[in-house]
Amino acid sequence: MQDITKVGIFTSGGDAPGMNACIRAAVRTALYAGKAVTGIYHGYQGMIDGNFWEMNSRSVSNIIQLGGTILKTARCDAFRTKEGRQLAYDNLKAAGIDGLIAIGGDGTFTGAEVFSREHDIPVVCVPGTIDNDLYGSDFTLGYDTATNTVIEAIDKIRDTAASHDRLFFVEVMGRDSGCIALNAGIAGGAEAILLPEKNTAIEELCKMLEGAAKGNKSSTIVIVAEGEANGGAYHVAKEVKARFNFYDTKVTILGHLQRGGSPSSFDRVLASRLGFAAVRHLFAGANRVMVGLWGNEIRTTPLEEALGNKAFKLSEDMLEMMDVLSI
Amino acid sequence: MQDITKVGIFTSGGDAPGMNACIRAAVRTALYAGKAVTGIYHGYQGMIDGNFWEMNSRSVSNIIQLGGTILKTARCDAFRTKEGRQLAYDNLKAAGIDGLIAIGGDGTFTGAEVFSREHDIPVVCVPGTIDNDLYGSDFTLGYDTATNTVIEAIDKIRDTAASHDRLFFVEVMGRDSGCIALNAGIAGGAEAILLPEKNTAIEELCKMLEGAAKGNKSSTIVIVAEGEANGGAYHVAKEVKARFNFYDTKVTILGHLQRGGSPSSFDRVLASRLGFAAVRHLFAGANRVMVGLWGNEIRTTPLEEALGNKAFKLSEDMLEMMDVLSI
Amino acid sequence: MQDITKVGIFTSGGDAPGMNACIRAAVRTALYAGKAVTGIYHGYQGMIDGNFWEMNSRSVSNIIQLGGTILKTARCDAFRTKEGRQLAYDNLKAAGIDGLIAIGGDGTFTGAEVFSREHDIPVVCVPGTIDNDLYGSDFTLGYDTATNTVIEAIDKIRDTAASHDRLFFVEVMGRDSGCIALNAGIAGGAEAILLPEKNTAIEELCKMLEGAAKGNKSSTIVIVAEGEANGGAYHVAKEVKARFNFYDTKVTILGHLQRGGSPSSFDRVLASRLGFAAVRHLFAGANRVMVGLWGNEIRTTPLEEALGNKAFKLSEDMLEMMDVLSI
Amino acid sequence: MQDITKVGIFTSGGDAPGMNACIRAAVRTALYAGKAVTGIYHGYQGMIDGNFWEMNSRSVSNIIQLGGTILKTARCDAFRTKEGRQLAYDNLKAAGIDGLIAIGGDGTFTGAEVFSREHDIPVVCVPGTIDNDLYGSDFTLGYDTATNTVIEAIDKIRDTAASHDRLFFVEVMGRDSGCIALNAGIAGGAEAILLPEKNTAIEELCKMLEGAAKGNKSSTIVIVAEGEANGGAYHVAKEVKARFNFYDTKVTILGHLQRGGSPSSFDRVLASRLGFAAVRHLFAGANRVMVGLWGNEIRTTPLEEALGNKAFKLSEDMLEMMDVLSI
Repeated sequence: MQDITKVGIFTSGGDAPGMNACIRAAVRTALYAGKAVTGIYHGYQGMIDGNFWEMNSRSVSNIIQLGGTILKTARCDAFRTKEGRQLAYDNLKAAGIDGLIAIGGDGTFTGAEVFSREHDIPVVCVPGTIDNDLYGSDFTLGYDTATNTVIEAIDKIRDTAASHDRLFFVEVMGRDSGCIALNAGIAGGAEAILLPEKNTAIEELCKMLEGAAKGNKSSTIVIVAEGEANGGAYHVAKEVKARFNFYDTKVTILGHLQRGGSPSSFDRVLASRLGFAAVRHLFAGANRVMVGLWGNEIRTTPLEEALGNKAFKLSEDMLEMMDVLSI
Repeated sequence: MQDITKVGIFTSGGDAPGMNACIRAAVRTALYAGKAVTGIYHGYQGMIDGNFWEMNSRSVSNIIQLGGTILKTARCDAFRTKEGRQLAYDNLKAAGIDGLIAIGGDGTFTGAEVFSREHDIPVVCVPGTIDNDLYGSDFTLGYDTATNTVIEAIDKIRDTAASHDRLFFVEVMGRDSGCIALNAGIAGGAEAILLPEKNTAIEELCKMLEGAAKGNKSSTIVIVAEGEANGGAYHVAKEVKARFNFYDTKVTILGHLQRGGSPSSFDRVLASRLGFAAVRHLFAGANRVMVGLWGNEIRTTPLEEALGNKAFKLSEDMLEMMDVLSI
Repeated sequence: MQDITKVGIFTSGGDAPGMNACIRAAVRTALYAGKAVTGIYHGYQGMIDGNFWEMNSRSVSNIIQLGGTILKTARCDAFRTKEGRQLAYDNLKAAGIDGLIAIGGDGTFTGAEVFSREHDIPVVCVPGTIDNDLYGSDFTLGYDTATNTVIEAIDKIRDTAASHDRLFFVEVMGRDSGCIALNAGIAGGAEAILLPEKNTAIEELCKMLEGAAKGNKSSTIVIVAEGEANGGAYHVAKEVKARFNFYDTKVTILGHLQRGGSPSSFDRVLASRLGFAAVRHLFAGANRVMVGLWGNEIRTTPLEEALGNKAFKLSEDMLEMMDVLSI
Repeated sequence: MQDITKVGIFTSGGDAPGMNACIRAAVRTALYAGKAVTGIYHGYQGMIDGNFWEMNSRSVSNIIQLGGTILKTARCDAFRTKEGRQLAYDNLKAAGIDGLIAIGGDGTFTGAEVFSREHDIPVVCVPGTIDNDLYGSDFTLGYDTATNTVIEAIDKIRDTAASHDRLFFVEVMGRDSGCIALNAGIAGGAEAILLPEKNTAIEELCKMLEGAAKGNKSSTIVIVAEGEANGGAYHVAKEVKARFNFYDTKVTILGHLQRGGSPSSFDRVLASRLGFAAVRHLFAGANRVMVGLWGNEIRTTPLEEALGNKAFKLSEDMLEMMDVLSI
C-alpha cells in the first residue's frame, strides 16, 4: 500500500471519446477514498507550466456524456528533456501531488514510464486512443465510439451510393492499425477494405470490384485505412478510375470527425471501470502499470510489457469474413 | 381538369433525403384517387430505357424513413436530344402514362419543361435538392436533413478542437448557394463562414481569427462552402497557416455524407405535403408548374418563372448575425 | 429608442431545446452593442431571490448545442402576487437591470405583460416551448427538435412492430395542441393519429385499424396526443384490445424525453435569429412584444395580441393527408 | 463433417438489433460454401406453416444496418406439442432442409434442443436478445444497441432534469437481468440503479437521494429495471414522493423503444462473427450447440450446458462502482 494523499490526473496525446467519463470515475473514486485530486491541464505541458486545478465531486458533474477532454491535451516537446521533467516534478511536489493517473496512448505511456523511474512517483495509466492499437487491453477508450461514427457515415454514404450506382472510397483513421477500418468495414457492409496490416494491390482490388459489379450489387463502398500501402483513398480512387472509367468515383475523408462525439455506452462503461480500477490499483501500491480489459475482467499490465509488445487485434475470423460476407 | 389515368413518377439529378417520403406520398395520393402509378427508374434515362415499375400501395411501405431514392437517379445525356425525348415519349405512351411527377433540381425542371411542351404531356415538379437553391419554395427536400448532418459533424469536431486549441476548416456542399454553409455555420457556432455569395479575403478571415484568439475562444471552426471564391477548404487552410504558423490546422471534407441519412421530421413532412399537393394539382389540371412551400402554405409556381428567377435565401439578419454571434 | 444599459435575460416555464442557443444569441447581441447582460436563474423565482449572474461573451461559449437551459427554469407562485412582483422589481433595479428578455410559453408571456405594465420596465419575449402552440410565430423553439425525437422513437418502434405484426400506441406531448402528434405521425408514417383538436371515437379508430390489417400492412402504429379526448394511450390501447383480441398491443409513453436533446439545426438557427432580433427590438424601443417567425421573416407581435389569439397550426392539407397517406 | 446441402435459418422470440446482420452473415457464409439457404418466416410457426423463402446473396443486401428481423418472429404454442414438431419436421424435409441456424433467446434454444433430438436434425444456435442474460456468450446480439438507446434517452432526460431540479425515474427492460439497467445506469451517470439481482428498499433509496440532494447535484435520475423487487418505476416514484413531497417526480417507461434501432457497430460485428461461425460449425459437424463470444474469441457451448447455467454478468467492480461514482 502506498500512502498517496493527492492524485494528479491528466490526459495526453490525441483526445478520445470516454476520456471525460474516465476522469469523472477516477476523480470520484479518489475522493470517495478520502484523497485529494488535482487536475493537470494539457497533459505533460501542464505539469511543466504548473497549470493545475483542485477538483471536487462537482468538478466532474455532467461530463460523462461529453466527447473530448475537460483537462485538454497537448503535445509537449519539453517533457522529452531531463530538464523539462525535473521542472514538472518540482511543480507536482510543490502542489503535494504524490501519485499520477495518466490517460492516453503509447506516447503517454512512454513518458509516464520514464518520468516515474526518474522521479520515483507512482503512476497508473489508462489506455485512451481511438485506434485500439495498444497491447494490454482488448479495447481502448474511444475506439467503440469512433467505429460507430464511421458506420453512421458509411450508412449515409450508402444511401446516395445506392441511388446512383456509384463507387465510393471512405478513408478512416489508422496509420498503423486497421482496427477501425476492418471493424467498421465489416459493420458497414463494405465491398472491400484496405488495411495497413495487409497489402492489397490495386489489381486485386479491381478484381473484387469487378466481382461486385457482376454480382449486381447496387452500391460499392471501399474502406481505406489512412496507413494502407497504396497511399490513401484519393490515390486508390484515381488508380481504380484509370482502370474502370465507366465508374463515377467519390472520395470522403472523415478525418477528425472520428475523434469527437458523445461516447457510446460501451466506452462510458469501459472508461468508468478503467478509471475506477486505476485509482484503486494506485492506492493499493501499483506503479508503472496500465489497466486494461481482458475479456470481461479488468487486469493490470506493466508499462514495460505493454510498450514492448505489439497489439494484434485483427482476429483471423474477421480477416476471412471480409471476403465471404461481401459476396 | 385533366383526365389522367396513370401517373409516372421519377427522381432525377442528385438524390436528397426526403425523396422516398415524397414518392410514397405521391403514389398513395394517386392510388387513393383511383389512378394507376408507374415508377420510372433512373430518371430520364429510365424513360428512354423503358425501365418501369407498376406500383401499388405496398410498393412504398416502410420507405418514409429511408435516405436516397428507391427509384434511383442518373444523369442522362440522351434526353438532351430530340431523338432521346421522342423515344422517352413513345415508351411512356406505350405504358399508358399520361401525367408525370418529377422530383429534382433545376436540371430536372428544365428537362420537364422542354419535354412537356414538346410532347404535350402534363408534368408537375417537386423541388428536391439539398442545396435549397431553387426559386419557388422556401425549402427544398433534403436541405434540413443535410444541415443537421453538418451540425452533427461540427459538434463532433468541436469536441476535439476544444481539447487541443486547434483551428478546423470544414468544407460543406454549395457550389453556388451558401445556404447550408450559412445556416450550419450559425447553428454550429462557427467562428467564420465563407460563402459563394460574399467574398471574404484571406486577410479579412485572418483578422477574425486573430480576434477569436484574443477573445480566448477555446476552439475555432471555419465553415467553407465548396463554391466560395478562395478555392475551397484545403486552399484556405494553407493560406491561413502561412500567416499564423503557430496554429495546427485540420481540414475535413464532408462530401457526399451530406446527401444521405434518414430524413428529418421537417423533410418528411415537407416531402409528404409536396408529393400530396403535386398529384392533386396534376389531377386538377396543372401543368409545367412546381409545388413549393411559402411560409406555411403550399403554392404552385410555373416552371418558366421558377427557372427564370434566382433564389436568394440568405436573409439580411442571418448575414449580420454571422459576425455578432461569434464574438 | 430606449436607453437600456443592462439587459436581464431569463427562461421560464417548461424548458425546450434551443433555449441555450437563444440565450447565447441574446447575450452576444447585447454585448456587441456595448450593453451589460445579467442572467436571471430560475425565471421569475430568480428575480424574487435576486439570483443573478453577470454574463460575458465566454459565459455562453459552447452552449449552442446543449438541450435544457443554463439559466434553469422553475414555476413561481410568488410572482402571481403583487408583493412578489414588487420584490422582483426592487431586485432588478438594485442590480441596474433596465430591460428584459423572457424566453418561454404563454405563462411566461402573461407574467411579462403584467410585470412590464406594473413596473414600467420594457420586455421582449421569445416563444420557447416544444408544443408549438403560440400565436405570433410559425414555429416555437424546441418544437422541431421534439418532433425529431418522436420520429426517431417511432422509427425504432416500427422495427420491432414490423418483426412481430404488433399494434403499438405511442403517446406524445400535447395537452391542447396536436402539432407534435400530427407532424410526427405524418413523418413517422403512423397508421392513425389521435389529436386534441379532433374527436376520433374508438369505433372509428377500429375501422381504420381493420382497414390497415386488410391492406396487409406489416406493422401498425397509432400516435396518441396526451390531450386527446379518449383519455390517453393506455386507455385507447385497452379499448382497442377489447375489440380486437387477436392483437398484441404495446404502449410507449415518451414523456420528458421529448423535452431534451441537442437542438436541431432548425431550432438553433431559429433560436439565434429570435434572440438576436429580440435584443435589437428591445434596444430600438419595443416593449411588451414577442418576436416570431412568419414565413422566412422575423416579426414582432404585441403580447396582448399574442395572448388573445389561439394558434391553429394544423393546416387543412395535413389533416386530409392523415387518411390518404396511411393506405 | 456433416453433409449439409440446404440450411434453414430463422429468428425466434423477441427481436433484437443485429439479427439482420447475423442472417446476412449466415446466408452468405453458406452460399459461399456452395450450399443452399432457406429462410423460415416467423420462427417455429413458419416451420409448421411451411412459410419458406429460397434465399440468394441479394436477399440479404442492404440489411446489415436494419433493426428488427426480415425473417420476422412469433411465439408458437403449437411447437410445444409433439404433433406440431412432427409437422415442422415434415415441412423441412419436404423442402430439403437438412441443417438449422436458430437466432434467439433461451426459449428458442430450448425448442431447438428438443427438436434436434427428436428428429435428428443438426442445429446451431446464436444468442440474440437485448437482455444479455444467456450463459455461453459475454454479449448477446442487441444488448449493446439497446444500452446505447437507453443512454441516449437518459442524456435527453438529464437536460430537462438539470433545468428544473427534478427527480426522474426511468424504467428499462430486464425482467430477470439487470444488465441493461446497471450498464446504462453507470454509463448515464444515474444517481441510483434498482436491479432484479439486488434488493434495494425504498428507505435505502431515499437515503441515497438525500445524499444526492445534500451534495448539490443539479439533477437526479434513478434507473429502474422492470423486474426489480419494488414493483417498477411508477410504484417506486409514488413511494419516494410520499416521503419527499418537495420533489416533482417524473416517470418514463422506455418500453419497446429499446428493441429497435439500427444496430451499433459492436452488434453488427458480433452478429457477423456469430453468423459466420455458426454456419462454419454446422458444416463442420456441430450439433445442439450455441456460438458465443468469450473475450475476443468465438467459442461453442452445448445447448444443454447453456440452458443449465445461469448467466451472471454483473461484475463485482460494476456493482461497487454504482455507489462510488454517483457521489
